[in-house]
Amino acid sequence: MILDRINEVNDIKNISEEDLPSLASEIREFLIEKISKQGGHLGSNLGAVELTMALHRALNLPEDKIIWDVGHQSYTHKILTGRKDGFDNLRSYKGLAGFPKRVESDCDAFNTGHSSTSISAGLGMVAARDIKGTNETIVSVIGDGSMTGGMAYEALNNAAKLETNFIIVLNDNNMSISENVGGFSKYLNSIRTSETYMDIKDGIYYKIKDTRPGSKVVDTVRKTKNSLKQLVVPGMFFEDMGITYLGPVDGHDIQAVEKAINEAKKRKMAVLVHVITQKGRGYEPAMRHPARFHGASPFDVETGIPLNQSKTSYTDIFSTVMTKLGARDERVVAITAAMPDGTGLKRFRNMYPDRFFDVGIAEEHAVTFAAGLAASGLRPVVAIYSSFLQRAYDQIIHDVCLQNLPVIFAVDRAGIVGADGETHQGIFDLSFLSSIPNMTVMAPKNKWELSDMMKFALNYDGPVAIRYPRGEAYAGLQDSRAPMEMGKAELLYAEGDICLMAVGTMVKTAEEVRELLKEKGYKCSLVNARFVKPIDEFATKWAADNHKMVVTMEENVLSGGYGEKVRTYIDSIESKAKVLNIALKDDYVEHGNVELLKKELGIDSLSITASILSALNK
Amino acid sequence: MILDRINEVNDIKNISEEDLPSLASEIREFLIEKISKQGGHLGSNLGAVELTMALHRALNLPEDKIIWDVGHQSYTHKILTGRKDGFDNLRSYKGLAGFPKRVESDCDAFNTGHSSTSISAGLGMVAARDIKGTNETIVSVIGDGSMTGGMAYEALNNAAKLETNFIIVLNDNNMSISENVGGFSKYLNSIRTSETYMDIKDGIYYKIKDTRPGSKVVDTVRKTKNSLKQLVVPGMFFEDMGITYLGPVDGHDIQAVEKAINEAKKRKMAVLVHVITQKGRGYEPAMRHPARFHGASPFDVETGIPLNQSKTSYTDIFSTVMTKLGARDERVVAITAAMPDGTGLKRFRNMYPDRFFDVGIAEEHAVTFAAGLAASGLRPVVAIYSSFLQRAYDQIIHDVCLQNLPVIFAVDRAGIVGADGETHQGIFDLSFLSSIPNMTVMAPKNKWELSDMMKFALNYDGPVAIRYPRGEAYAGLQDSRAPMEMGKAELLYAEGDICLMAVGTMVKTAEEVRELLKEKGYKCSLVNARFVKPIDEFATKWAADNHKMVVTMEENVLSGGYGEKVRTYIDSIESKAKVLNIALKDDYVEHGNVELLKKELGIDSLSITASILSALNK
Repeated sequence: MILDRINEVNDIKNISEEDLPSLASEIREFLIEKISKQGGHLGSNLGAVELTMALHRALNLPEDKIIWDVGHQSYTHKILTGRKDGFDNLRSYKGLAGFPKRVESDCDAFNTGHSSTSISAGLGMVAARDIKGTNETIVSVIGDGSMTGGMAYEALNNAAKLETNFIIVLNDNNMSISENVGGFSKYLNSIRTSETYMDIKDGIYYKIKDTRPGSKVVDTVRKTKNSLKQLVVPGMFFEDMGITYLGPVDGHDIQAVEKAINEAKKRKMAVLVHVITQKGRGYEPAMRHPARFHGASPFDVETGIPLNQSKTSYTDIFSTVMTKLGARDERVVAITAAMPDGTGLKRFRNMYPDRFFDVGIAEEHAVTFAAGLAASGLRPVVAIYSSFLQRAYDQIIHDVCLQNLPVIFAVDRAGIVGADGETHQGIFDLSFLSSIPNMTVMAPKNKWELSDMMKFALNYDGPVAIRYPRGEAYAGLQDSRAPMEMGKAELLYAEGDICLMAVGTMVKTAEEVRELLKEKGYKCSLVNARFVKPIDEFATKWAADNHKMVVTMEENVLSGGYGEKVRTYIDSIESKAKVLNIALKDDYVEHGNVELLKKELGIDSLSITASILSALNK
Repeated sequence: MILDRINEVNDIKNISEEDLPSLASEIREFLIEKISKQGGHLGSNLGAVELTMALHRALNLPEDKIIWDVGHQSYTHKILTGRKDGFDNLRSYKGLAGFPKRVESDCDAFNTGHSSTSISAGLGMVAARDIKGTNETIVSVIGDGSMTGGMAYEALNNAAKLETNFIIVLNDNNMSISENVGGFSKYLNSIRTSETYMDIKDGIYYKIKDTRPGSKVVDTVRKTKNSLKQLVVPGMFFEDMGITYLGPVDGHDIQAVEKAINEAKKRKMAVLVHVITQKGRGYEPAMRHPARFHGASPFDVETGIPLNQSKTSYTDIFSTVMTKLGARDERVVAITAAMPDGTGLKRFRNMYPDRFFDVGIAEEHAVTFAAGLAASGLRPVVAIYSSFLQRAYDQIIHDVCLQNLPVIFAVDRAGIVGADGETHQGIFDLSFLSSIPNMTVMAPKNKWELSDMMKFALNYDGPVAIRYPRGEAYAGLQDSRAPMEMGKAELLYAEGDICLMAVGTMVKTAEEVRELLKEKGYKCSLVNARFVKPIDEFATKWAADNHKMVVTMEENVLSGGYGEKVRTYIDSIESKAKVLNIALKDDYVEHGNVELLKKELGIDSLSITASILSALNK
């Protein structure tokens, strides 16, 4: 195994050129095997094997810096920087992270997770380098999907001013998480299909007429920048902005990429190296089903079939409800930011293509676009994961809620998401959404309630956010289906000393807490909050008036969440009831198994029961 | 006066072509006179007079829709839609708003205030139109400055897919609030200086060789789209994306703009009409000092000199401190998003041009760029207004605070800002910043404390936000200058029944409240909070232990702010002290005089005193 010789950073430089293809194959096998057991991002990593190898050969890490946009494609980078052994615990609690992390290795220059940040961060490092007078090479690696995010364009606009070296590698696989959209994608496609692959040497560009391996028939197409301007060549879009364009380069040809990077290093300006790669390369199932293998659960290597067939998720419920609402009400339109699969909107798209909009990785635009639709009398449903909706905080304040427009936010992946870790936990949405005037914030206790909430939101004439978690939808409490009413909680059990007031997923946990407290001799009432904003003051007063202690439970940070609102209200009515807030502490939450994380965070039923008993006995 | 004949929408269509230049002049005089008394956005409005007139002639309002990006250039639009008489109360409480408002007129299609939203909102209206099967024309008017915002690019990327009409007017005055920056600006400049102004008729383009008025020597340069592709012509950037480009057009030539709009209406796709205008046109002082007349205070029409020479503001203090810190510490770098004047960073720029970065209207990029600088060992100070920093909420969470990077956020215009109204009030920052792990949030009580806090932040190894208001810096309490210590409040007065715990500007108000309560026979302690996060638990416990009532005071919404944190802590120590939270209610705050607004909102000293007395007597 050549891979055995890769044990720390720069070991790859000791591998002979002829052994590189074998090493690439071994890395692919390694990735497929490890990810099939641990789950993880497969397609993007298989596509970036040779690109990563070439970067490590052309650069000198850790002095030189690579910033991986989104970061889910950094597995080969981790293998090449001494973290091969970590893959047995990939994405597990305290194990190797699925994204770059500065605390994990000094070869990880910048933490990522969300899209379109790498050029901005890279530019910061370039500016710092020049101020400090050092001379490391800085490379941002960004996918074509991430290029639809406005931040990337803001950064390109600034990169165009540089009079110092900065390399942007555009890793173009014609595919973000789902299929790519829009003018930029169309533009890249025109380059890809032009079949004018370039060979680069000493600043002179050759047009390779025949791109088949071995063929070397070339024409010189430009020797100076000026002559280029007279030709219709790829990359004018970037050249027009003031960024040197090199490419397209075959991203699976290690020598070609290495050469392009070395060429790019010579320029005293921003250089975009356009690299064409194939997502899922080398593994048939991943090439056939790119969306499924974007972020994969453990699967059978032979067939590519997931090992655990997933149970009905909240996403599935949302998917079904949307098709029903779409049939019933022609005003219903659906918007996703590059996640038709992940959000479950694919079915709606297939049934109502004219009322479905995938805007690309562009959360800000998605929300204001929805505001425009709502201002014209339609009923847009914007489905965006909790942690990505943070991107559109201002647009929710400024474009939707200020005009009190009836936009429904379907906030998936809210609460603890597990293996994706810190950047993907949806633990701030109750706070940032609650701070916004005119916004209504809800969370369902089970699968039926998500459906009821969607219908309620559609009939309400103002903005509504409904947050629900990743994973299996709770199928308990089927008979508790009191009609939805604005700002009204649902009383599930009325008895005893303690009143549990639980938000969303915490209702199930509260049922368990109730049983555990019963064993200890305490009787508990249980209120399903339903509304985080506005809180149900009547139910809260009832809870405070009739119990020794009111316990709020939510999967969100304390600051600005449900618990503080309940506490403030109970204080305002001068109640003697004690209030205990169960919420997440003021910290980021690592990657790991969800149940394990909840225990560590003190929000599983046993920990909560212990907290309540401790508060009672104080 | 021709202007007398403009009393409602579409009246301009009854004005003869030959009278239009006179009407334009009268509108300019009207604007200069009214804005000189009321203050407001002068330069952008003087630049858009003819453009607006042409749009109103080419369109049929209110059926057709105009979305004004940012919206500060919409004054002529307001004049042309029956709101001329409102200008005597422009930007006053309950008077005419300085931005478009749907509640003010059915000719205002969409509320704006922040930059770069108009193409997204317009696209939403286009999609709704097509779903509903109506046929109104939709026009988004966006400045070249707003085009540096990533959202605008996200929207352009989506507009490129359209197979239906949508008009984007690029109002290019080579000037956002301050001077424009970056690759896009450079690109537009190359078009402007090419002097190939186009005349458009029936889809055939003519190149006007001589652009002097009266000259009509033209060459046909293209008749089909394909032939265009062989030429180096303006607008390839947009054409490459899939957007038809028309222009550049002289934006002060009403007929030319009207013709371009009518031409654009014929296309079944997105069309960008590039209009060149001159900011401040027709008023010498505004042309000479575009930044000063962007948002102007009342001024003398003859000289352009402001009527009230402003007193020392917090921005002035920040400006001075930055130059001192820049001299003392070479790691200090400063970043602004197109506001070197407004944020006071102009002096730093002049003294340390290599350590100053104006990134354009690009708050998201600004913050992650700062994270890159900090990750490389520098000490970036990002100065962004409170309401605009909402745009970078995710970047603060994901790029700065997750990595605990030492970025200083100078959050100007925090709290009530006054005449700019709803979109510009900085009333959410304490909430959204406090929800973020690793973030420290501070607010100074007076001018000296802002300086001390900046120095403290520079010595602290993590992210710090310092929020301060628009307007005069408080010069009282000069002798209260206890050393800054992490998380430590400052005790100003220790006596009596009530403890006021005030944040930032509220300390001055609290001094007044203290005097008013003294008159009623109550003694008050006063704590200057200094830190909103983390709160000073020791001081809070002292307040709770030694007073009947603790009153928190902040210029921010209640949800997620300082008051809830203090209340939660006091509850947790099982204190018997009553807590009263003075904060803003859950609503947007209109435009108007700051003092008047504070009274309406119940956060002036008299209202607060009344609230305290009422709570005491409950």
